Amino acid sequence: MSELTKMRVNLDRIKADVETLASIGRCDEDQGLYRMAFTDADIEARKWLLGQIDKAGLISRSDGAANIFGVLASDHDSPSLVVGSHLDTVPCAGSLDGSLGVVVGLECLRVINQAGYLPDRDIELVAFSDEEGRFGGMLGSEAFIGNINPLSVQHASDASGLSLSEAMLSQGLDPSKVMEARRNPSTIDRYLELHIEQGPVLDHKGLNVGVVDQITGLFRWNLKLIGESNHAGTTPMEMRRDAFMGLADFAHEIPRILDEIGSESARATVGQAEIQPGAPNTVPGMVAFTLDVRDTNQEVLEALKDAFHRALVVICRRRQLKFDMNEVSSIDPVRCDSEIIKILEEGVTELGLKALRMPSGAAHDAQIMGRQYPVGMIFVPSRGGKSHSPDEWTSWTDIEAGANLLLHAILKLTAQKQSLK
Amino acid sequence: MSELTKMRVNLDRIKADVETLASIGRCDEDQGLYRMAFTDADIEARKWLLGQIDKAGLISRSDGAANIFGVLASDHDSPSLVVGSHLDTVPCAGSLDGSLGVVVGLECLRVINQAGYLPDRDIELVAFSDEEGRFGGMLGSEAFIGNINPLSVQHASDASGLSLSEAMLSQGLDPSKVMEARRNPSTIDRYLELHIEQGPVLDHKGLNVGVVDQITGLFRWNLKLIGESNHAGTTPMEMRRDAFMGLADFAHEIPRILDEIGSESARATVGQAEIQPGAPNTVPGMVAFTLDVRDTNQEVLEALKDAFHRALVVICRRRQLKFDMNEVSSIDPVRCDSEIIKILEEGVTELGLKALRMPSGAAHDAQIMGRQYPVGMIFVPSRGGKSHSPDEWTSWTDIEAGANLLLHAILKLTAQKQSLK
Repeated sequence: MSELTKMRVNLDRIKADVETLASIGRCDEDQGLYRMAFTDADIEARKWLLGQIDKAGLISRSDGAANIFGVLASDHDSPSLVVGSHLDTVPCAGSLDGSLGVVVGLECLRVINQAGYLPDRDIELVAFSDEEGRFGGMLGSEAFIGNINPLSVQHASDASGLSLSEAMLSQGLDPSKVMEARRNPSTIDRYLELHIEQGPVLDHKGLNVGVVDQITGLFRWNLKLIGESNHAGTTPMEMRRDAFMGLADFAHEIPRILDEIGSESARATVGQAEIQPGAPNTVPGMVAFTLDVRDTNQEVLEALKDAFHRALVVICRRRQLKFDMNEVSSIDPVRCDSEIIKILEEGVTELGLKALRMPSGAAHDAQIMGRQYPVGMIFVPSRGGKSHSPDEWTSWTDIEAGANLLLHAILKLTAQKQSLK
Repeated sequence: MSELTKMRVNLDRIKADVETLASIGRCDEDQGLYRMAFTDADIEARKWLLGQIDKAGLISRSDGAANIFGVLASDHDSPSLVVGSHLDTVPCAGSLDGSLGVVVGLECLRVINQAGYLPDRDIELVAFSDEEGRFGGMLGSEAFIGNINPLSVQHASDASGLSLSEAMLSQGLDPSKVMEARRNPSTIDRYLELHIEQGPVLDHKGLNVGVVDQITGLFRWNLKLIGESNHAGTTPMEMRRDAFMGLADFAHEIPRILDEIGSESARATVGQAEIQPGAPNTVPGMVAFTLDVRDTNQEVLEALKDAFHRALVVICRRRQLKFDMNEVSSIDPVRCDSEIIKILEEGVTELGLKALRMPSGAAHDAQIMGRQYPVGMIFVPSRGGKSHSPDEWTSWTDIEAGANLLLHAILKLTAQKQSLK
C-alpha cells in the first residue's frame, strides 16, 4: 500500500477537462451553462466524455437510460466499485455541479490505469442521465437501481411539456430501452461520488473537504390557504379572513418547530408564494405556497410532517381559513456506508486535509444509489455557498484535495485483500 | 318644512336606472361590469345620463374633464350644493359602486323638481370622471378642485400603457381642456355623496345607513426586502438571509403596531407579494410587497409610518437584509362637515332608520372634494361586505332609506332660510 498512497491526480488534466466541459452549452449572454438532459449540449458533453474514456484506455459503454460508463477492468469477477456523478445541468448553471464528480472520477481512473495498478474488482466511472430532474426524477440513477416503470417513463415530460420520449428520440435514443438500464445488484459493490457542497459550510469554515455521513431526506408540500378577499380600507382587521396573514403565522412557526423537533440538519423553506387576487388595496383571499422540509433522520422527518400539519390546522382555526395540501415529493434520508466514511477519514489524515463530517442537504445520485448499495460522498467547498449559478466555484487547491481523497478511497476499496494473497 | 319632510324618492325609478346602468358594459361571461373610464361603455353610460338629465327637466352640461352635470337652477346666486358620485367602474365590477350615488342623486333632483320646490341655491348633480383611477388618480374631482397640472395629465396612462390623452381623443374628448374643469371655489357650497359602504360593518350590524364622519387617509408603500438566494437543502437555517422570512416578521408586527399606535379605524394590509427567484428548493433572495395603511387621524397616520419604518429597520438588521421603499401614494384623511352630519342624523331620526356614525375606509370623490369644500357622505350596506365584484349588492329597502336620507339632507341644505324671509 505504501506505493499506492503516493499516487496523486494530475491537476492540469482536471483543469483542462473542467474547462472543456465549461464551454459546452455556455450562453455568452449570462455566462451560464444550459446543458439540460437530452439537449444538444448534453449530447455533445456525453460524446466528449466517451472520447476521453477511450483515450484513457478504459472500456466505454452506455445503457438504455443513456448513462455513460468507463470501465477499468480487473481480472476479478467481484462486484464493481462505481464512481461518478452527472454531466447535465440546470438552466444557467455553473461549471462544477455534477461535472466535477465525473471529471475527477475520470482522472482517478486515468491515474490508476497509467500506474498499472490492478484492482480487486472492476472500477466503473459513471455519468448518470438527468440528475437535475428536467423530466421529474433522477432518471439515470433511478433506472440503474430499477426504481422506474414503463408508465412513468412514458408520462415524464419537462416544464415546457416536451415528453422524455420525444426528447430522447430527437437525439437518436430509444426510450423503450430505459427499463433495460437496471443493473443486476450482484454486479455492484459500492458507489462513490465527489460533488461540490452547494452550501456555505465548508467555505465558511475554511476547510478543504467534507466527508458526507448522511444525505438528507425531504418532503415538499404545495399548500393553499383560503380565506376571503375584501377591500383593504373598508374591512376592519377583526372581520378579515386574510390568507396571507395565515402564511405569515405559519412562517413564524418554522423556527419553533425546527428547534423543538428537528435534528441539527433540519431545514424548512417557504420558497414560493403567490397571493390572490394580489392587489395592494385588497385583503388576500388566497395564498398558494410551497414548503420544503429536510432532515437526515427519517423519524424526525415524520415528526416534522405532523408538527407542520398541526400548525396549519391551528392557524386555519384561529383565522377562519381553509387549507389545501398536496405532497409533491417525499424522499427518505440515506446513511452513507460507515466503512467508506472510515476510509475517507483515514484519507483526510494521510493527505493532511482540513475536513468536516457533515450531512448533505441536497439530493444527489448517491441518494438514489444508497437505496440499494453502500454509498459514500466527498464534498468540496462552494465559494460563498453559491450553486446553480455561473458564480459557482471551488478553488483548484480544494478540487485537487478532494480528487486525491477520492483516489485514495478508490485504491483502498479495490486493493487486493491480504487474506486473498 | 313640514310638507318637505313628506317628500320621498320613487324607488321604481331608482330600480329602473340601476338596472339600465347594470346593463352597460356588462360581460356575459363573468357577469361583471367593465365600464372603465373613457371606454366605449363609460361613454355610453355618460350619454344615457345626459339623456336622463334632459328628461328630468334639468340643465345638462359637461366640463373639460368630462365630468357630467345636471343642474336644478334656483333664482339665487348662492354657491351650489353639489350631489353625486361616479359612473366608471373597475374591471369586473358590481352595479352599485358609484352608479348608485349618481342614480339616487338624479332621483332626488327629479323629485324636488317635480314637486316645484324652489331651493335657495342651485343643486348640481355630478358624475365625476375616472373615480376608480384607471389613469392613476381621481381625474374628475381632482380637476374640479384644481388639484391637477398639465404635466400630470400629459403623463397619465393606464396599466396597459395607454395614455389618458389617447383614451380621451379616441372618444372625441380634448385632453387639453382638462385643466379648464377647475371650478371657481366661490360657486360651490357643499358636496354630498351617497355610496355603498364596500365593507361588512352595516350589513353585519343589520343597519340601514351609515353617516360618515371621517374619510380615511392612507399611505401605500412598495417595498423590497433583499437577502440572498441559496439552496434550501444545503444552507443551514442560521446562515440564511431569507427575504421572505423578513416579510413574515414584518407581517407579524402589523397587529402590534395597529394596537399600539392606530386609532379604531386603523387598517394595514399586505395585499401583494412576489418572491424572487421563487423556487420551492431555493431560499428567497428577494421579496417585493405592498403595504397599505389607513387611519382617519393624520397624526396617527404619521406615527404609523414611523412605526412601520422602524419595524423594517429592525427586521433588516436582525436578518441581515436590505430594504427598498417607495411611497406610491399618501392621502390625507378628511373630516366630514359637522353641520351635514347633524342634518343627516336628524334625518335618520325623522325617517326612523337604523344608522351608525362611521368612518369611510375607502377613498371617494368626497375625499377629494373635502380638501376644498364641506362634504358629507351617506353609506348604504354592502351585502356580505362585497364590492368590486359582480356579487356587490344592497337591499332595495336600504337603497330607498339612503335615498330618502339624501333627499332630506338636500332639502335641509337648500331650504330658504327663515332669516331671508
